[in-house]
Amino acid sequence: MSKKSPWGRRLDLESGVVDMTHGAGGKAMAQLVDELFVAAFDNPMLAKKNDQAVFDVAAGRMVMTTDGYVVSPIFFPGGDIGSLAVHGTINDVAMAGARPLHLSASFILEEGFPLRDLARVVQSMAKAARDAGVMIVTGDTKVVEKGKGDGVFISTTGVGVVPPHVIVPSGDRARPGDAILISGHLGDHGVAILSSREGLSFETSIGTDSAALHRMVARMTEVVPDIHVLRDPTRGGLAATLNEIAQQSGVGMSIDEQAIPVRDEVAAACELLGLDPLHLANEGKLIAICEASAAPRLLEAMRADPLGRDAAVIGEVIEDEHRFVRVETSFGGGRILDWLTGEALPRIC
Amino acid sequence: MSKKSPWGRRLDLESGVVDMTHGAGGKAMAQLVDELFVAAFDNPMLAKKNDQAVFDVAAGRMVMTTDGYVVSPIFFPGGDIGSLAVHGTINDVAMAGARPLHLSASFILEEGFPLRDLARVVQSMAKAARDAGVMIVTGDTKVVEKGKGDGVFISTTGVGVVPPHVIVPSGDRARPGDAILISGHLGDHGVAILSSREGLSFETSIGTDSAALHRMVARMTEVVPDIHVLRDPTRGGLAATLNEIAQQSGVGMSIDEQAIPVRDEVAAACELLGLDPLHLANEGKLIAICEASAAPRLLEAMRADPLGRDAAVIGEVIEDEHRFVRVETSFGGGRILDWLTGEALPRIC
Repeated sequence: MSKKSPWGRRLDLESGVVDMTHGAGGKAMAQLVDELFVAAFDNPMLAKKNDQAVFDVAAGRMVMTTDGYVVSPIFFPGGDIGSLAVHGTINDVAMAGARPLHLSASFILEEGFPLRDLARVVQSMAKAARDAGVMIVTGDTKVVEKGKGDGVFISTTGVGVVPPHVIVPSGDRARPGDAILISGHLGDHGVAILSSREGLSFETSIGTDSAALHRMVARMTEVVPDIHVLRDPTRGGLAATLNEIAQQSGVGMSIDEQAIPVRDEVAAACELLGLDPLHLANEGKLIAICEASAAPRLLEAMRADPLGRDAAVIGEVIEDEHRFVRVETSFGGGRILDWLTGEALPRIC
Repeated sequence: MSKKSPWGRRLDLESGVVDMTHGAGGKAMAQLVDELFVAAFDNPMLAKKNDQAVFDVAAGRMVMTTDGYVVSPIFFPGGDIGSLAVHGTINDVAMAGARPLHLSASFILEEGFPLRDLARVVQSMAKAARDAGVMIVTGDTKVVEKGKGDGVFISTTGVGVVPPHVIVPSGDRARPGDAILISGHLGDHGVAILSSREGLSFETSIGTDSAALHRMVARMTEVVPDIHVLRDPTRGGLAATLNEIAQQSGVGMSIDEQAIPVRDEVAAACELLGLDPLHLANEGKLIAICEASAAPRLLEAMRADPLGRDAAVIGEVIEDEHRFVRVETSFGGGRILDWLTGEALPRIC
């Protein structure tokens, strides 16, 4: 049964595949944009089919962020490259204390990629955006020859606005004495991806924690408008993120190992694979650093949000000219938490 | 001689290659960002090394646009994937009558890609942005395994503001009686890319026309604030762009073939390759559609700009329920200018 469209025969989203014409600027591309992207993302800006979106903004502080997504495999427990691309970019907007407004999406497709998989990814993006209350207002599609890509890569860019009462958090604003908080369990995303890789046949019920954090951030800035640092510990995990912030701010950190929330199952998977949960990627967690006196209020606001129920204070910022992140163990010992060069976990997001 | 850096040994931009660690969120990635991207793009927002940029905006109309660049080969006469990625995105901002503000850049690199080539591309982006007066304020880098990418793909996103006096051009605003103008010779970019492809061994002195058009657009909107449509005829060429606009606006078009500027050398290359210059990509040209009475003023403004010296009025918008684009030949004949499905020219941008 071939359904009709203004383009003649409709795209075959069941058994069709991406071919070079879908990126070549002609009718085939226009049909793909119409029947898949415009239909799924469904908003008046995209429906205009111009090469850009135009929208009104109030005077204020605007945030812009971009991320490429090359996660492998593209479908994994609890999510896929599409929902990840939406959540990750919303989160990078939110980490400036901002309210996300709009996203753009650039797709780089490999010839031969099943249109069914593309449709699934696009619909997942659409749902994630709808749930988060943002719109995907403009986009682009390119196609590369078979063997020159890997199914689908997505680069999403987000813009947002910082509410007037918020002092913008920044990685260089951690000060000795500040409290360090984390919004929940570490390592879920990393374990979910690893468990779905070919050749790694361990069983786990852990799914990605991929989620949009902007509503929790809004609760947080409501009670503490001057959060010094907000950052989501994605690639490189908590270890890389804390070390980055220590470098940017010129401080050290002291972390209480016992206070760091890690699920038993994640800890077990890490032991099996020889990994440290503190190096694993997270896609729905944030680190917040604020004045110690504000930490109880901030923790309460985080715990009031469904995504922050397991939030905890995990340590404090200290003076240290070496900018070391120290982890104190339960037996009074300690170690320096270094960040990896980067070998361990390719294409985790 | 190994120069020192805070990362120990400096990146080897002469003989080093991209490896998986450069995208893994650890020290190797931080070093690449520091020594290559932050150094080349050189601006205070990027130097903050947060995951996002924050900047002030006035109340008004904001434009957002994104494009992926997968051009092959990445270096070609007159440009490279880096300058193209900057010009193309600036132009999509400018086609809304807007002044471009900031760009973001997402890099997807293939393992084994020479750092020397990456540095050349990044420096070319930096120069293009500097020349155009825009900043690359935030970015991201991912690395995929050898054979899962093709050297470098870049997705750039641009934001800009529409000046208060400008009525936003849009593809659905062409009206019967409107004049259709083009800013210069067609097909240069397409021929430049084809001439540099392996297996296509024709000789030509044609380089890409890749250029940032926002300054010419500013001159144009100064004299004609209500340009109905502005669009750059990239992938799919003039043929695809005019057909898209005809579809969006529900109109026909009548184009005078003799009035379309095409260089002799481009015409000759097209004859050799069996291509039509009207289907070839352009990266530094625009189509403008405005009221007939405003066309002489608009043409004068275009010709006053170095990038619009060869601008011409090439036809008019007509009523046509079939939304056909007709090309009238010098002998009083005519043909329908169709747009291709898309086979002819993969990875032209």
